[in-house]
Amino acid sequence: MSAFADRGVAAGARERARIRTGDFSGPTAGVAPGNVQANLDIRTDLPRYRVWRGGELIEEPADIDHIWRDDLVSFALGCSFSFEHALIEDGIELRHMTCGSNVPMYRTSIGCEPAGPFAGPLVVSMRPLKPSDAIRAIQITSRFPSVHGAPVHIGFPSAIGIADLAKPDYGDAVAIRDDELPVFWACGVTPQAVIAQVKPEFCITHAPGSMLITDLVNSQLASL
Amino acid sequence: MSAFADRGVAAGARERARIRTGDFSGPTAGVAPGNVQANLDIRTDLPRYRVWRGGELIEEPADIDHIWRDDLVSFALGCSFSFEHALIEDGIELRHMTCGSNVPMYRTSIGCEPAGPFAGPLVVSMRPLKPSDAIRAIQITSRFPSVHGAPVHIGFPSAIGIADLAKPDYGDAVAIRDDELPVFWACGVTPQAVIAQVKPEFCITHAPGSMLITDLVNSQLASL
Repeated sequence: MSAFADRGVAAGARERARIRTGDFSGPTAGVAPGNVQANLDIRTDLPRYRVWRGGELIEEPADIDHIWRDDLVSFALGCSFSFEHALIEDGIELRHMTCGSNVPMYRTSIGCEPAGPFAGPLVVSMRPLKPSDAIRAIQITSRFPSVHGAPVHIGFPSAIGIADLAKPDYGDAVAIRDDELPVFWACGVTPQAVIAQVKPEFCITHAPGSMLITDLVNSQLASL
Repeated sequence: MSAFADRGVAAGARERARIRTGDFSGPTAGVAPGNVQANLDIRTDLPRYRVWRGGELIEEPADIDHIWRDDLVSFALGCSFSFEHALIEDGIELRHMTCGSNVPMYRTSIGCEPAGPFAGPLVVSMRPLKPSDAIRAIQITSRFPSVHGAPVHIGFPSAIGIADLAKPDYGDAVAIRDDELPVFWACGVTPQAVIAQVKPEFCITHAPGSMLITDLVNSQLASL
C-alpha cells in the first residue's frame, strides 16, 4: 500500500472496518490521524460505547448489537482530534500525547444553552501550553469552528468552576509546568454531562476518546 | 460636516492640518480613530517629537524645523492604535483607555533580530484582559499583521524580563485585576530602545503616543 493510499478515505475506511469486525476496540487517538473523528455513536463503527439508563452509566461495551433499537437516532459531534492534528503539525507539544494518556476533561460552571428538555454544564478539555504556544494554538483552532474552534478559557481554572486541575472528571490528569497556562476548549463529552443531569430513560454514547473515524480529512473542516 | 465626511481621508487630512499648524500637540489616541496611525517621524505632521543625540533623549519638541536636516530619511511603523480600534469596536475594554492614560510599555529580554548596526530589546505594550477577552483579542489582532499582529506573550511577565508591571519603561501603569491576564504585543517604541543601545549620533522619533495620522483606514490593513 502506498503512503498516499494510507491517507484520507482509504485510511478511514480501513480503520472503521477493523473496528466494525472487532479487531480494534481501543481509543482512536492517532488512528488515521489525518481523518476527522467524531463524538457519539454509529451502530457498529465505534471502538467502545457507553450505555446510559436514567442518567446512570451502566456499561462500556465494544459492541451494542444486543441493545440496539430501530427507533434510536444517531448524530456525530466534532472532536478535538481534528484540531490537535493541526497543532501537532505546527510543532506544538500536547502533554497528554507526550504522556500517552487521554486528554483531561472537566465539568465547568458554564451552563450550556438549553434546548428543549436538554440542559447541563459545558465540559472542557485542557491542554497546558507555554504562552507563545497558547497564542499560536488560539490562532490555529480558530480556523476549525466546527470542531470546537477557539478556546473558551485560558488560565484561572476556578473562574469556570474547576477546583483542582489534578482531578479531571474524565480522561487523565497531566502535569502543568510553572511556565505554562492551562488552555480550555469546549469538549464533545458535554452531552454525557447533560445525560447525567437530564436522566433520559435510555441512550448510548461513544466512550470518551473512542471516536467515530470519518472519511473527511481534517483540513476540509478549516474555515480558512 | 456630515458624519461620513468626518471619517477616513477627510478626518486624517483635517487632523494633520491641525497638527501641522501647531493647533494640536497632544497624544493622538482617539484622534481620527478610524485612521491608521504610525510611529516615527514626518517633518511637520506629528504632534510631538523626541530628539536623540548619542543615544540620549535631549528634548521633546512639538516642532522640529530648527533641527531638520535635508539628509534625514523618514519612515513610518505600524501602530497598535489600529488594532485597538478593532478591539474597542468588538466591545473589549482597554484599561488605559478607561483610565485616560497612555498604554504601559516595557523593555523585554527578547532581543530583536539585528539589522546592520542596529540591535536591541523588543519593547512591548501590555493590556490586562479577562481570559475570554484575551482569546478574542488574539483572534482580532491576528488579522492585523502589519500593525504588530498577534500578541508575543501572555501571562508570566518575568518570562520576558519584566520585573514589575507597575513600573513601565514608557507610558503609564494600569491596574490589573485578579481575574485578568497581562497580554503583551510588540510595540513601535522598540526603535527608541534600539537608539538608546546603539547610540547613533543624531535622530528624531515620535514621542510615544503622539503618532502620525495617515489617510489609510484601519480596516484596509486587515489581512482578512
